[in-house]
Amino acid sequence: MKAEIISTGTEILLGNIVDTNTAYLAEQLAALGIDLYYTCTVGDNYERLLGALKAAAGRSDLILMTGGLGPTQGDITRDVIAGLFEEKMEVDLALKTTLEQFFSSRSIAMSSNNLKQAMLIPSAQAIPNARGTAPGWWAEKNNKIVIAMPGPPGEMQMMWQNHVLPALKGRTDGSVILSRTLKTYGMPEGSVDEQLSPLLKSTNPTIAMYAKADGIHLRITAKADTKEEAEKLIAPQEQAIRDAINKYIWGVDDDDLAVMVGKMLTDRGMTLAVVETFSNGTLIQVLARTPNSGNFFKGGYYAASEEVKTSLGLEWGSGDMAKTAGAVASLVREKVHATIGIDVEGYLEKSGEAPMAKIIIAIAGAKSKITLTRSFPGRLTFLEQRIAYQVLFELKNFLAES
Amino acid sequence: MKAEIISTGTEILLGNIVDTNTAYLAEQLAALGIDLYYTCTVGDNYERLLGALKAAAGRSDLILMTGGLGPTQGDITRDVIAGLFEEKMEVDLALKTTLEQFFSSRSIAMSSNNLKQAMLIPSAQAIPNARGTAPGWWAEKNNKIVIAMPGPPGEMQMMWQNHVLPALKGRTDGSVILSRTLKTYGMPEGSVDEQLSPLLKSTNPTIAMYAKADGIHLRITAKADTKEEAEKLIAPQEQAIRDAINKYIWGVDDDDLAVMVGKMLTDRGMTLAVVETFSNGTLIQVLARTPNSGNFFKGGYYAASEEVKTSLGLEWGSGDMAKTAGAVASLVREKVHATIGIDVEGYLEKSGEAPMAKIIIAIAGAKSKITLTRSFPGRLTFLEQRIAYQVLFELKNFLAES
Repeated sequence: MKAEIISTGTEILLGNIVDTNTAYLAEQLAALGIDLYYTCTVGDNYERLLGALKAAAGRSDLILMTGGLGPTQGDITRDVIAGLFEEKMEVDLALKTTLEQFFSSRSIAMSSNNLKQAMLIPSAQAIPNARGTAPGWWAEKNNKIVIAMPGPPGEMQMMWQNHVLPALKGRTDGSVILSRTLKTYGMPEGSVDEQLSPLLKSTNPTIAMYAKADGIHLRITAKADTKEEAEKLIAPQEQAIRDAINKYIWGVDDDDLAVMVGKMLTDRGMTLAVVETFSNGTLIQVLARTPNSGNFFKGGYYAASEEVKTSLGLEWGSGDMAKTAGAVASLVREKVHATIGIDVEGYLEKSGEAPMAKIIIAIAGAKSKITLTRSFPGRLTFLEQRIAYQVLFELKNFLAES
Repeated sequence: MKAEIISTGTEILLGNIVDTNTAYLAEQLAALGIDLYYTCTVGDNYERLLGALKAAAGRSDLILMTGGLGPTQGDITRDVIAGLFEEKMEVDLALKTTLEQFFSSRSIAMSSNNLKQAMLIPSAQAIPNARGTAPGWWAEKNNKIVIAMPGPPGEMQMMWQNHVLPALKGRTDGSVILSRTLKTYGMPEGSVDEQLSPLLKSTNPTIAMYAKADGIHLRITAKADTKEEAEKLIAPQEQAIRDAINKYIWGVDDDDLAVMVGKMLTDRGMTLAVVETFSNGTLIQVLARTPNSGNFFKGGYYAASEEVKTSLGLEWGSGDMAKTAGAVASLVREKVHATIGIDVEGYLEKSGEAPMAKIIIAIAGAKSKITLTRSFPGRLTFLEQRIAYQVLFELKNFLAES
């Protein structure tokens, strides 16, 4: 089955909003084994949208549309599907009743515009919308399926999960696309290229590299008739990658470095407190957002001024930056009665054309203390997040060795 | 001039990455007064990409392409443009020399694959890439302009700003699209609809509403032959909006609430320290990321446990949550010698179907102290950011009144 996604909305074409629905649906289609060759965005213009829909229907079997289901004049998705199938829209009495109940239960008068949202064509069925007034459409004729869903991501995703996905599962040709992601940290990009380039030429499974804030991800993707066959294609490639670079792999698939470190701490009955400068509180935020962080995270100090470290009891002038970091890590540990204290500092250093960010990480436990220096290109995308994950990675090693 | 954007890359179609280049370029085109009617994404497949490019060239004058300029076999953007214009690619000696210098200056051997990046067709000129090895292409023939830029957003944006944008400015038909954004906070959405709905029907200028973390933005967009005429279209609409809801408007266009509050503090020689719970360190991060925050922000305490407040000198059991918040705001102020101390607390409260987030904000200055309670729907998108901006908004009012 070949699919295509059409998102509608002039606000996307004006750059006012980033269309995240397309990426969401693209990933969902891949998991279903449905090939996606095109996506496009068209404004709220009847002729242009109908043209795009006709082009899509000419080359694909399944067309997913998002947006344009509201009650206003600019909402033309229903009209365009009616135009493609050359059918007339009429008010569906059951939909009209549902809509009237929606408004009366909220004591709001229903405007006559909203009647648009109760319309159907003979080839279309309504898809319930648990979060809004706009039902979706499942329209099907001449072996072409057109599915229209609302633009707000929350409404769209709930409609997809509850109604569209289960129905599509029964309609696919049975082939499966399966992915396995290996997550690495600390591996120089050059050595990835060198060691993995023969593997990267593989076509089924394919192997792709993605640079993320928590390291380089290697994604192995196989297509096969069954899940078991796809797994058989993936396994030898995963083994070949592990043979080459296993020491850099810290997790797979949905593994999250903060969750893993949090679990290591919680399992040992240990707690953590951090002092952060330079990376703008991002380490504090990553730790705070980790599910169940209350079990291990006791607090974070963002030291925008020296007074914050003074408030922890630091006596100044006692040494260089690394020594100070070590002292601060011990102080925050004692101050809030945590098992482990961390201080992360940094500064930008000009070296030739481009600045380098020099990062000092001190980790203090009950028995041992380490201080490390790391460098990052100063203009790196996600620099704050990269520093936060570097700290988590060093903490993971510290815990593994102690 | 009619434009179209084509982004390439199978990783977009697999949902592995969200294409942000299209939204960036869409906004840039709008500011140039260039109409954008379509955008699309096509995978790294020669036939499909050529088909999409031909369709675009059939209906648009300017086609912006992103991605597919790397050195690998999957990078086919150059080949497809050569296919559209029916020209042959050849190695350009000047480009080859630049590329060789790039690699030798980094002491890396240049692979033969990289020679692809030194190729041109007779109708194309190379666009310099300050951040990578892939030059862009400006190809032009039969009144069609095709501009190819790299996929990494940093490379693409620098190439756009330094080379493509200045060149395109000389080529537009002279019409201008001008926008004016009014930024509001604290206005109930229902009252926006009610008070502004007659204005929202305007077609030139158009008026659109966007819900953002820092409040509801109203964007007035006019198209005219000159900047002056566009301004004349916008002015009466801005006045009409201000007549209706002026008290909620805190800024326009690029105004940033954190920058404004930081400037108010700096102008008065005042400094700020905060204690944060519940919103995961997001207030600390927003303040730390504000340009020149070193001038006014002395530090942030993320109180994941009671020990952090104890470390500030709080004596527990002294009162309810609001009283405690007031005490903590005073303590943090004294502890780091800041002019103003803030404590923000919160908890989720079940009320009927949906949880509500109850937020307590205490602001302590030298002479006065206030404690406020605010509520947000608990499942709100950007809840953490909304809380952070609520605090900044209350601080702005506090400063204005003191």
